[in-house]
Amino acid sequence: MMTDTSAKRAMVTGASGFTGRYLCRHLARAGWQVAAIARPASAPGLRTDPSIERVYEYTGHTAELLDACADARPTAVFHLVSLYFTTHTSEQVEPLITTNILFGAQLLEAMKNSGCTVLVNAGSYWQNYRAQPPFDGPEFCPVDLYAATKQAFEALAMFYVETAGLRCINLRLFDSYGAGDTRRKVVRLLLDTLRTGQPLGMSPGDQILDLIHIDDMCRAFLHAAELALEQPRPGAAIYSVSGGQRRSLREVVATLEEAAGRKLPVEFGARPHRYREVMNPWQGPPLPGWSPQIELLEGFRSLIAEEILQAQ
Amino acid sequence: MMTDTSAKRAMVTGASGFTGRYLCRHLARAGWQVAAIARPASAPGLRTDPSIERVYEYTGHTAELLDACADARPTAVFHLVSLYFTTHTSEQVEPLITTNILFGAQLLEAMKNSGCTVLVNAGSYWQNYRAQPPFDGPEFCPVDLYAATKQAFEALAMFYVETAGLRCINLRLFDSYGAGDTRRKVVRLLLDTLRTGQPLGMSPGDQILDLIHIDDMCRAFLHAAELALEQPRPGAAIYSVSGGQRRSLREVVATLEEAAGRKLPVEFGARPHRYREVMNPWQGPPLPGWSPQIELLEGFRSLIAEEILQAQ
Repeated sequence: MMTDTSAKRAMVTGASGFTGRYLCRHLARAGWQVAAIARPASAPGLRTDPSIERVYEYTGHTAELLDACADARPTAVFHLVSLYFTTHTSEQVEPLITTNILFGAQLLEAMKNSGCTVLVNAGSYWQNYRAQPPFDGPEFCPVDLYAATKQAFEALAMFYVETAGLRCINLRLFDSYGAGDTRRKVVRLLLDTLRTGQPLGMSPGDQILDLIHIDDMCRAFLHAAELALEQPRPGAAIYSVSGGQRRSLREVVATLEEAAGRKLPVEFGARPHRYREVMNPWQGPPLPGWSPQIELLEGFRSLIAEEILQAQ
Repeated sequence: MMTDTSAKRAMVTGASGFTGRYLCRHLARAGWQVAAIARPASAPGLRTDPSIERVYEYTGHTAELLDACADARPTAVFHLVSLYFTTHTSEQVEPLITTNILFGAQLLEAMKNSGCTVLVNAGSYWQNYRAQPPFDGPEFCPVDLYAATKQAFEALAMFYVETAGLRCINLRLFDSYGAGDTRRKVVRLLLDTLRTGQPLGMSPGDQILDLIHIDDMCRAFLHAAELALEQPRPGAAIYSVSGGQRRSLREVVATLEEAAGRKLPVEFGARPHRYREVMNPWQGPPLPGWSPQIELLEGFRSLIAEEILQAQ
């Protein structure tokens, strides 16, 4: 399958998600051979993606990942898959642990067995919540159980750093936006309002957002892998992948209005802030040698244009 | 079941293990009502233990723990259960995660739902391995995957500290000894040699051990729960439960020989050190207000006496 022995080989988890789809395309364009590991429900869709050369199915067994990594012999693993619930119920504890920790542990073991030592791991700035100042404390403080499972996975990865030569870059991703994003996040809600004209009730809007264009984020993933590949020694690092443009929700709405050329029927203060709303996102060490290129207004303009194209 | 409403109520996991059995007895003697959560295979044995008032069975479902905690309404949970493999195989990754992380996550959720806010969690000094000086670095550095799963659980607990008022004391336990310990650890091996007279091949013996008598360890668990109960605010703390007598393996053997009144046929240097042998155990912050009472020679003397009694 993997015939070009000079090309770098990526193994991507979460390839059917918003970020994963963009990342597979980005890696393929950069000359990487891309393989994906996916649940049987997602595999058929991924098999139609021209940027993905091979799809391995996972139904819960460690052996499936051992076989997948032994076959694909990845140069780097991009671990994006995660399960997320806004507020989890007791019944969701098990799937959260299974997807966000057990699968990751099995993946680390498979990497070790196949000799793959480069891992780019998608984490979240929600691992570093601070309700009170100082907001930039380095300590782990999870917004929710999802964020805690991300941290738990990083603890497991440390064992492989110590014993299997792993060079692990744990990215703290901020909120991405881009065309085709169906996640019920703020930019999606605003685009829906733009399309339908339906009023949108929001919180008071004073929370700071840090939005990053999906293309910038993909560049960060690739750059992180290159950094890890050059890294002479095993280790784990934490870097933030921020859009570099911290704006209040009110300012974000104003920027989208500017990009769209009209006012949006947003009602600030119609809802309370959510439980454990992130008012001031964490600011961590930036990924060295990478910086975001896409300014928010420009990003919103191209987003609106693409959304209109896609709707036609 | 739990009729004395003034008594403190303990929920113990891992009650059928060496430490768990001693702890249940210790808690009952201190006036606590003791309940245990156990796998069906361990439950019948625990039901014959007079120190345990009630045994709840767990077959993997979150709902079982929700029901158990709702019924028992524990004042404090003592979370001792863990799965351990010297060197894990790929097939053992899943049971390690399931026992050491998933079960713990379900337990935390059940504590939240039943309003229990005190957790005494059994961790290990193996979470703070250092192969090189300085040996007393505060950072997490797992000896093995088992130690990494312990750390991962602590990350999950932080979510409940943040959102459910949890007062969590994470103990870093050192190596315990006591009568009836069947774990294949160094003191057991030496006692077997004492009994059989068979030569025992050991490593060079220069590694430092920190041995603690099981009675001292049980006092530490109870003291930790009392500390957490008095703690005015949610939080997580890490304290070491050390025997306070750091000795080389050679010195430990000499102490046991002194207690036994004769030489043991130990061959130092007959084996290499194990992979990632802990040469200098971590020294962390001691549990405030508690200190070990049992000197090693005295502990070994009573251990030998009890072993002889048990063998008769």
